[in-house]
Amino acid sequence: MAPRVTVYEVGPRDGLQNEAARVATEDKLALLRALAEAGLSRIEATSFVSPKWIPQLADAEAVVAGLPRAPAVGWVVLAPNARGLERLLAALGAAGPGAALPPGGPSVTPAVFLSASEAHNRRNLGRSVEESFASVAEVIGPAVARGLAVRGYVSTAFGCPDEGAVDPGRVAEVAMRLLALGCSQVSLGDTIGVATPTGVRAVLRRLLPSVQPERLALHLHDTRGTALANVLAGLEEGITTFDAAVGGLGGCPYAPGASGNLATEDLVYLLAGLGLETGVDFGRLVAAGALAQRLVGRKLPGKALQAALAALAARPARREGAP
Amino acid sequence: MAPRVTVYEVGPRDGLQNEAARVATEDKLALLRALAEAGLSRIEATSFVSPKWIPQLADAEAVVAGLPRAPAVGWVVLAPNARGLERLLAALGAAGPGAALPPGGPSVTPAVFLSASEAHNRRNLGRSVEESFASVAEVIGPAVARGLAVRGYVSTAFGCPDEGAVDPGRVAEVAMRLLALGCSQVSLGDTIGVATPTGVRAVLRRLLPSVQPERLALHLHDTRGTALANVLAGLEEGITTFDAAVGGLGGCPYAPGASGNLATEDLVYLLAGLGLETGVDFGRLVAAGALAQRLVGRKLPGKALQAALAALAARPARREGAP
Repeated sequence: MAPRVTVYEVGPRDGLQNEAARVATEDKLALLRALAEAGLSRIEATSFVSPKWIPQLADAEAVVAGLPRAPAVGWVVLAPNARGLERLLAALGAAGPGAALPPGGPSVTPAVFLSASEAHNRRNLGRSVEESFASVAEVIGPAVARGLAVRGYVSTAFGCPDEGAVDPGRVAEVAMRLLALGCSQVSLGDTIGVATPTGVRAVLRRLLPSVQPERLALHLHDTRGTALANVLAGLEEGITTFDAAVGGLGGCPYAPGASGNLATEDLVYLLAGLGLETGVDFGRLVAAGALAQRLVGRKLPGKALQAALAALAARPARREGAP
Repeated sequence: MAPRVTVYEVGPRDGLQNEAARVATEDKLALLRALAEAGLSRIEATSFVSPKWIPQLADAEAVVAGLPRAPAVGWVVLAPNARGLERLLAALGAAGPGAALPPGGPSVTPAVFLSASEAHNRRNLGRSVEESFASVAEVIGPAVARGLAVRGYVSTAFGCPDEGAVDPGRVAEVAMRLLALGCSQVSLGDTIGVATPTGVRAVLRRLLPSVQPERLALHLHDTRGTALANVLAGLEEGITTFDAAVGGLGGCPYAPGASGNLATEDLVYLLAGLGLETGVDFGRLVAAGALAQRLVGRKLPGKALQAALAALAARPARREGAP
């Protein structure tokens, strides 16, 4: 295992987009600040998708314009198509195809996504995987030409809500194609939280013979409690980047009431226990989780968060008979 | 990894003893029946502790007398001291030191427990670990003399709410002593849910050079989301028995509001994904989890249970932008 692991925070984007609550822009910026102060070095801040689809993130321009000063943070913003990239560049002060990014601004780079399974891609994006490749190429090409690293997501990498099992060979092919198009890193998404270590290893073992482990990430959901077991399997295979959402923000879009994103606190707790460096301060992360919980107005599912908050609130009581 | 794994169900005992709800005896028996029908082969049914301490299990005699006919199930009952064993034997129809167990009855065996850490043992049992050894010896000796297998629990095997870290050498010593006293299996308990795979491996590697893996079990709590990662580590070390509670029944006694026992559904989901045989029918287990949830009147924390119930209740809806 690598001694240093990158915790890639997706809560403000992948979490908030699945929360019913509408969070004010200034509150989002406070959360981004709290996450940066916790020591997270990669934070996905928002998404330039159509507000028609994701009204929760309709203030993407204002979020990008207000990003906290945090030189150690690489911010990432979802830009699913050429229009999304245009909006991102305009928000960064570089409107128009030739305009340069103003110097001295925060590091903000785009991310794109498509699905490994045809059915999910059609349901999620209304087009074929092939059409999605054409669409994301219109982001990757211009972004790379400007010197921006682009992250790619492969959704349904370990199972599809419509097709069921997804062939690991197919997942590897889609991931390789995103890398070949110019993505600096591809994150393999367990969109519906069905993965177990066997499936995680099967996909990784297709890719790792030809891809440096730093160019892959695992985006695991904890819908069935297996996320950290999958992290352990990923670490054993050599993966060094794991996605997570503060507090486990966001639910499972395919099973309302069930959990979605792996909670950042759970991930950081595990990694610390394994003796791996993340640069994240657990106490400050819990403070960010408590803030996230207040902002969405519900108890978040992150277990290490709840345990930490309970420990802060309660004194131990004498109990008998509990091995 | 062994192809066959034993899921040891502790919900009716370790779960219900930590639930605020009082469940009627007949409802407990219905839950035990549902768990047996799900294919669980080892089920801990109740506890002969003082009703003063655990009023939730004050009906232990009636539960033992009413155990469902399920020849494939080995029932276990906590009997922390000589008085507990007496009560158990009387409930089985063998009152008095020499009385034989009536033939043809269910298989019911006792379990005993103590802590690896002195402070927790004192807090939990009001006596030293040494005194507890004397007390459990009064259960183990007579039970073994009657041909009954005795399970031993080592609490705080991976961390103590009072002492913090617990020396793996100390845990191994306590476990070895329980085995030497005659326990057929010792379950290592992560009482406060702080374990990570590093700690699990450290303890197991002290024991496994001299103990057959079947004589050890892991009793993991999911208080910080790490339970299944610890299961994976345990499997990799050769462990073949894992404790879990249906639905994740029972909370963490040291952090009200936080999770306790690993949920049986999560464990079974992981093991099935790893291709390991458990003999458990997942659909029937979910039915038992739904029953447990109704009986205690709250949404249980088991993630695979909630995902399964949500999938039963909801149809997938079109969503965009969720890698």
